[in-house]
Amino acid sequence: MAVASSSDITGEKQAFKIRRLEISDKRKGFMELLGQLTVTGSVTDDEFDQRFKEISSHGDDHLICVIEDEPSGRIAATGSVMIEKKFLRNCGKVGHIEDVAVDSEFRGKRLGKRVVEFLTDHCRAMGCYKVILDCGVEKKEFYEKCGLVNKGIQMSKYF
Amino acid sequence: MAVASSSDITGEKQAFKIRRLEISDKRKGFMELLGQLTVTGSVTDDEFDQRFKEISSHGDDHLICVIEDEPSGRIAATGSVMIEKKFLRNCGKVGHIEDVAVDSEFRGKRLGKRVVEFLTDHCRAMGCYKVILDCGVEKKEFYEKCGLVNKGIQMSKYF
Repeated sequence: MAVASSSDITGEKQAFKIRRLEISDKRKGFMELLGQLTVTGSVTDDEFDQRFKEISSHGDDHLICVIEDEPSGRIAATGSVMIEKKFLRNCGKVGHIEDVAVDSEFRGKRLGKRVVEFLTDHCRAMGCYKVILDCGVEKKEFYEKCGLVNKGIQMSKYF
Repeated sequence: MAVASSSDITGEKQAFKIRRLEISDKRKGFMELLGQLTVTGSVTDDEFDQRFKEISSHGDDHLICVIEDEPSGRIAATGSVMIEKKFLRNCGKVGHIEDVAVDSEFRGKRLGKRVVEFLTDHCRAMGCYKVILDCGVEKKEFYEKCGLVNKGIQMSKYF
């Protein structure tokens, strides 16, 4: 029983591989996954490639990660983090987490938590003094489980 | 009387010049102003110069503005904006406003509003679909006067 359980856990970890976004992920449902967050529009392959290169040019300062469901070859979850360089806090750095999404078919497998931990670990390794994100109040409990605490409000203006 | 009033307004506009941060602003009290927001630590001239160059290398994608009180040559207000490139919203862009500060000696002159409008105008010109920022709930009314609305909460984790 203990062996079977251990095997199950190993199996699940292998099935869901977390890694950086690759340019080929557009064909694996990456944009459709973002479409579960908000409007994506119709992004052509060329537009995708150009934006991918723009983001990649920032190296470790702008990381987009994905979790691929290896059996199906589909992107099951994603999230991004952009590192801001400041003058305050001894020329400190802050990680801004954005666009965390888990495919509705893959919910309940803690993939969201894995994404947030992956991005948070990246920020820690990059020497950030904190990581921040904005979310709807209904997501507060989820992010608390990821080790974040509520601190202030988000204001926004759409053009 | 009307002429005198008009002259006063013109005088005030000329006294406070809004512009991009320059490397020489460290000597004009820029770090001391940030110190009114949070801990700044003891940043050497070399560290300041290096961070200035890192941020400047992003060009219009990371703008720090200051308002200089020209009679005294002191930095009276500041704010920054970092532009994030996304895949969603037709490969859209979002402006993240950070570190808005007005020197306690220069409050009540609408300098904070000028900073936020300057940064917001920059984001609009850069093609962003929105601008966002995080703040304490006590700043909500101020940012509403700047045209922003509350949308969600901020979560954070300090390392």
